[in-house]
Amino acid sequence: MQNFVFHNPTKILFGKNTLSSLGTETAAFSKRVLLVYGRNSIKKTGLYDRVIESLAHEKIEVVDHAGVSPNPLVSHVREGIAKVKECDLGAIVAVGGGSVIDSAKAIAAGALVAHDVWKFFIGKKTIKATLPVITVLTLAAAGSEMNSGMVLTNEKTVEKFGFGHRLLYPKTSILDPELTFTVPPDYTAYGAIDAISHVLEFYMTTQDPDTQVQDRIMEGLLINCMENCERCLDKPDDYSARANLMWAATLALNGLTAAGLGRVGFPMHMIEHSLSALYNVPHGAGLSVIIPGWLTWALPHRKKRIARLGRQIFPETITNELSTTAAAGQTIALLRDWFAAQHSPVSLSELDIPITDIPHIAQNSLQLARVWRLKEYGQHEIETILTLCK
Amino acid sequence: MQNFVFHNPTKILFGKNTLSSLGTETAAFSKRVLLVYGRNSIKKTGLYDRVIESLAHEKIEVVDHAGVSPNPLVSHVREGIAKVKECDLGAIVAVGGGSVIDSAKAIAAGALVAHDVWKFFIGKKTIKATLPVITVLTLAAAGSEMNSGMVLTNEKTVEKFGFGHRLLYPKTSILDPELTFTVPPDYTAYGAIDAISHVLEFYMTTQDPDTQVQDRIMEGLLINCMENCERCLDKPDDYSARANLMWAATLALNGLTAAGLGRVGFPMHMIEHSLSALYNVPHGAGLSVIIPGWLTWALPHRKKRIARLGRQIFPETITNELSTTAAAGQTIALLRDWFAAQHSPVSLSELDIPITDIPHIAQNSLQLARVWRLKEYGQHEIETILTLCK
Repeated sequence: MQNFVFHNPTKILFGKNTLSSLGTETAAFSKRVLLVYGRNSIKKTGLYDRVIESLAHEKIEVVDHAGVSPNPLVSHVREGIAKVKECDLGAIVAVGGGSVIDSAKAIAAGALVAHDVWKFFIGKKTIKATLPVITVLTLAAAGSEMNSGMVLTNEKTVEKFGFGHRLLYPKTSILDPELTFTVPPDYTAYGAIDAISHVLEFYMTTQDPDTQVQDRIMEGLLINCMENCERCLDKPDDYSARANLMWAATLALNGLTAAGLGRVGFPMHMIEHSLSALYNVPHGAGLSVIIPGWLTWALPHRKKRIARLGRQIFPETITNELSTTAAAGQTIALLRDWFAAQHSPVSLSELDIPITDIPHIAQNSLQLARVWRLKEYGQHEIETILTLCK
Repeated sequence: MQNFVFHNPTKILFGKNTLSSLGTETAAFSKRVLLVYGRNSIKKTGLYDRVIESLAHEKIEVVDHAGVSPNPLVSHVREGIAKVKECDLGAIVAVGGGSVIDSAKAIAAGALVAHDVWKFFIGKKTIKATLPVITVLTLAAAGSEMNSGMVLTNEKTVEKFGFGHRLLYPKTSILDPELTFTVPPDYTAYGAIDAISHVLEFYMTTQDPDTQVQDRIMEGLLINCMENCERCLDKPDDYSARANLMWAATLALNGLTAAGLGRVGFPMHMIEHSLSALYNVPHGAGLSVIIPGWLTWALPHRKKRIARLGRQIFPETITNELSTTAAAGQTIALLRDWFAAQHSPVSLSELDIPITDIPHIAQNSLQLARVWRLKEYGQHEIETILTLCK
């Protein structure tokens, strides 16, 4: 196990009717807030009214900032920052999934500086302070509700970049699984696949050979994401399934799985971000295309690890009798099949992305490879991986 | 899954040479501290000098408070409180295992009130504030380094009581596995068994039938505690084994496993505390006696749960072919055998406790049953369980 610092100060309120605590949790930080959310869905479901009611109960003044898109845009974040500065607001309340929460975090950081917020993302400026962020989660996927990361897309430069900073942990996050009952099947699956990818990135990129504690936690989370995704698709208002999926997705990227693994990376995200940036593909849909291709590319060097993964998540098929080579190969095939069974795409062609675009996509990914310092990924490597995703 | 609040603000510094950060971590809170530790072992190993050196580097004044015993005494805590008040100290530094850390927490709470500290333990007073506690862990066992609990023994009233409060989380805990290389085999095993018991208490007492996320985390931690205990006994300076055991023991009782399980209890601890209070038995040694007996007592109502446990932690013996009844029975027998193989006692007679004492022990446990509101445990039930431990 490698040395690590673990310090996750986010307070989680999990369960039914926890939304009613939003007002008091927010009032502890400010009585004047920016309310960040997506398009119309929270108004249709009545969630917007419940949020306003809880905030009003504590006499909190609210400035609306609607319209966060699934791949959140820096232009929209800039508008939010302008509102916070103009109205002198003291906290940000995010109601939504990872896109909304990431936008809220970027606004919370950008509102306290004079320079453009994108400079944080390209490493030209460092965060020194942030406004408090309080979140209400409506999608089990990104894990942003309990971590220090954020991802934004710059539509002008066609870059989807992300990074983490210890000041970006939300103060309080409210996780009510009932709020995810209305998530449609495709986004339920994309969310589960996003959580799965977060676990797999660390599981596959650690170079430490003896991280038994983390390995078993990660394997348990993977099984939970898969089983409960299936249950949610089968019965969208299965509280228990939604609860298990939600908590598993949060734990998948709250620092717990990475602590002790040493240097880990997000190479699959690195490539997927280019699909999102260039073709506006939903993040989870892009990941289910990239993951099997990346695993196939990594197979020669990570055969044992992939075989172990398969024995844990597909124990009935990947038995101890199978050789490591056979087990590893079958694991990738079974994972691809599982994504397909959740109706998530597993090839570039399903996303209508022509193979002739591969060099261009790889060029885009290279930018992020540089920012994230994933030195082992050059144009050639990324093209090879993308070819395995065709 | 049941509603829960999860908020664990302790900062963990894990790994080799993290001790050198003790000074800076402490100086963030106070430059005048009480240093709490046990008997002579940290002086023999040179750890004491390293602690003093790191604190001196930040010009921190230190008042010594040595002599914490394995079942820590309230009388010794009272002496510590007197020193803090007399010298007007601003933080408590604990260097040791759970006993030392629990003593430090009790001093941190007791130093800010005029009444006797024991009143917190019998529920007559509530904690309103505490001094900051910084810990250096030297034993993988109690989990106190990352939780809000503490346990003390009142030698006058012969009570070993414990409770939790959100103000009792240490600010920073330093976990260097190398500091546990010198832990002798018996206490290494007792520590692992303590951690195992923390997982088992929650695993067995939850009434929620669908806590898949927590179940898999708990099962993973159990396997890790067992496997790495064996590795540590085999090779005391196996860094990787010590690291995995240490982190597993910390996660076993940091709130993560309990979050979402609803009401859980510590019935095995409740009875073991009486063995410690009456006969000064090492906590882990008492637990390895009580656990198999308690499980045998619980068997008729928790057959399925115990069978699932066995299938996870003894997969080679407890196969899917076995009936639930056979699997559950064999699980208890195998666990008892495993404790015995680590040279931890598995019967009252091995502790030289006569069977005729059982009514008296049960009477002592009843006090804690009342404080912890474990209403299902009367004199008769506790005597029955103890009889199964003979």
